[in-house]
Amino acid sequence: MKTADISTQIISMAQRTKQASRVLRSMSAELKNTLLLETAEALLAGREMIQQENNLDMAAAQERGMGSAMLSRLHLSDAVIQEMVTGLREVATLSDPVGEIENLRRRPSGILVGRMRIPLGVICMIYESRPNVTIDAAALCLKSGNAVILRGGSEALRSNLALAAVFHEVLKRHRINPDIIQVVPTTDRSAIDVLLQQEESIDLVIPRGGEGLIRAVTAKSRIPVLKHYKGVCHAYIDVNADMEMAQGIVLNAKIQRPSACNALEGMLVHQAIAGEFLPRAAMALHREGVRLLGCVRSQEISTLIEAAEEEDWGREFLDLTMVVRIVDSLDEALEYIECHGSRHTETILTRSYANSQRFLQEVDASAVMINASTRFNDGGQFGLGMEIGISTSKLHAYGPMGLNELTTRKFVVLGNGEVRA
Amino acid sequence: MKTADISTQIISMAQRTKQASRVLRSMSAELKNTLLLETAEALLAGREMIQQENNLDMAAAQERGMGSAMLSRLHLSDAVIQEMVTGLREVATLSDPVGEIENLRRRPSGILVGRMRIPLGVICMIYESRPNVTIDAAALCLKSGNAVILRGGSEALRSNLALAAVFHEVLKRHRINPDIIQVVPTTDRSAIDVLLQQEESIDLVIPRGGEGLIRAVTAKSRIPVLKHYKGVCHAYIDVNADMEMAQGIVLNAKIQRPSACNALEGMLVHQAIAGEFLPRAAMALHREGVRLLGCVRSQEISTLIEAAEEEDWGREFLDLTMVVRIVDSLDEALEYIECHGSRHTETILTRSYANSQRFLQEVDASAVMINASTRFNDGGQFGLGMEIGISTSKLHAYGPMGLNELTTRKFVVLGNGEVRA
Repeated sequence: MKTADISTQIISMAQRTKQASRVLRSMSAELKNTLLLETAEALLAGREMIQQENNLDMAAAQERGMGSAMLSRLHLSDAVIQEMVTGLREVATLSDPVGEIENLRRRPSGILVGRMRIPLGVICMIYESRPNVTIDAAALCLKSGNAVILRGGSEALRSNLALAAVFHEVLKRHRINPDIIQVVPTTDRSAIDVLLQQEESIDLVIPRGGEGLIRAVTAKSRIPVLKHYKGVCHAYIDVNADMEMAQGIVLNAKIQRPSACNALEGMLVHQAIAGEFLPRAAMALHREGVRLLGCVRSQEISTLIEAAEEEDWGREFLDLTMVVRIVDSLDEALEYIECHGSRHTETILTRSYANSQRFLQEVDASAVMINASTRFNDGGQFGLGMEIGISTSKLHAYGPMGLNELTTRKFVVLGNGEVRA
Repeated sequence: MKTADISTQIISMAQRTKQASRVLRSMSAELKNTLLLETAEALLAGREMIQQENNLDMAAAQERGMGSAMLSRLHLSDAVIQEMVTGLREVATLSDPVGEIENLRRRPSGILVGRMRIPLGVICMIYESRPNVTIDAAALCLKSGNAVILRGGSEALRSNLALAAVFHEVLKRHRINPDIIQVVPTTDRSAIDVLLQQEESIDLVIPRGGEGLIRAVTAKSRIPVLKHYKGVCHAYIDVNADMEMAQGIVLNAKIQRPSACNALEGMLVHQAIAGEFLPRAAMALHREGVRLLGCVRSQEISTLIEAAEEEDWGREFLDLTMVVRIVDSLDEALEYIECHGSRHTETILTRSYANSQRFLQEVDASAVMINASTRFNDGGQFGLGMEIGISTSKLHAYGPMGLNELTTRKFVVLGNGEVRA
């Protein structure tokens, strides 16, 4: 297709989505849940069709020489389909935020003023590979009353269209305009550029994927973008930390799932405790296969620690590697985190009330913890239900984003003829 | 100065502001209030110096042929200075949102999870004329724990620098880095372009002024922008409205302050009530000097109504002009508002519970009202205290923005050695 045609097609799609989204403003929670549960059933019933389309994507990807890790992310196995089904049922159990009125209060003028939770409108998700995001994102958007435009990886287009078709079948059965859930039907990259200019039709863009993708989307978008760049998380072991607890938390935060964005990438140890803490902690980490890169002082304490290069400070390893740094004070730890952290998750291990409170107040990150594992920074663990991403930018949402974060609040005024004096 | 020099200067200024902003994360409410109250005193004491600088701005503006309306906005009269003093004292009385922890709850894992209100960091205000915004914005930013970069109209630069100097004198007395309140010290337009690229140093941009300024800022900014384009507000007079109440509200909403963004620009009248309501309402409005532009059907009912041009529908008049349109149903009114409203303020006049609830749910605007004047959409009237603007975009804040809207929330986790299973 020519670029001009794609542009026309994308603009028209965004406008139709906007138009269709209005029905969601007042759709009952009951109907939304019915749609989600029926889609779960339809996914199971349509498994064969979905996997046929997925096989075509897989074959094409293999032919183009895609690596096995990427291929496995692309694969819609029975297990992945079952996860999507479970996810849909879980979203149906979450409570519907739309319509909730908070802080309804009478003002001196006589009017009652409150804030009603409403959908954002139209959300555009831009993501790489993993076609299961198509179902997860569509479910969360539907439940929060938003229409959604999905732009997945080009290698997953057939799979994504097949998954959307399952949703559409259920929507049509209930005579609901299927335009509320759209998959961009082209792999042409210019489609993204056009989408990012549709500020009149799209209210929010959520990119999910590598830092390159997110930076490119942010640079081009005229629409607000909720972004999650990377997770460079630290644990600061304070002078008077409970050493056993500290070691347990560091181990858990590093090895429980090293590829996660809330896994530990660095450990800052107060110099007064380092001589006692570090050799044991380094040994425990080493036994679990963790490679330690450290400052000169830390290397003098443990021979298991190799020299860190300058670029290792603040690096997102996402594997069994981490940095170790000895600091002289809480202030130095705070300064290091300010400089090398990514505003994702930071934890302090301490017995000092004063230091715990300073850390809580002064660290700028989406989650700041005392004596707990960074791995807890997660929508499910925090009680938000399923998450659509973790925002490390501060506007609108900071941290895990659940259903509430896909809504906004308008003011509502219940009057009885009041006028302004 | 050369463009390259300006660029270096602005980048350095933004970085210094970011660096200085850290002290505000944990500054006590008491100290912030002291700073505000002492600045109020210093403004009174420094009035002569401020007015001298303001006179230089006024003289230069007059020489360049600035109109009298603009000149009057630029003038820092005794009354305007007194208003700023009152404003500073009022901000000191508002409660400090920073540090407040909401919804602290124990999760099944044992951790306590809550959300702590924190400052956004650094806010950049871009505004036209009116140097009093310099003090108002700096006060609200300081109280909400944010550093601020102020870029006012170029014709007000001397006045703005003089006002900032008053703040700086108080900050220095308390040994606080004055970089937390900055006035861009050049009138060069390229400074704005450079500012809008400093996403690492600036967290939020708030433009205040005409639609052209706001659109230009949004198009160029890599930083999130909170925008308020315009206020095209409507009243829908339902079939069974209390006609006396409806007329009172329409009059108030139109004439109490026609130049305000929450003033009425259009009236939609149900056809079944139009014959009785419209002649009287038109007469009352006409008596107050309001010019009415209407649809053909409305002109048949009242000779006081002139023909509206196509471009009048959805126009922001900001004076004693408004449109009148007869509609056949609530649905038609909703459709008209969707099409011609500006997502600012919409009100329904009705006795019908069902219609009031549909209007409340289905209208997409920052404030949706039942039987009340649109003029209530205001931070003070809604109980937010002073406002820094009214957002008509949905991300982060929708409607009047007070201190809370200048903050965000991070997650805090209080643990006792918990790890993730």
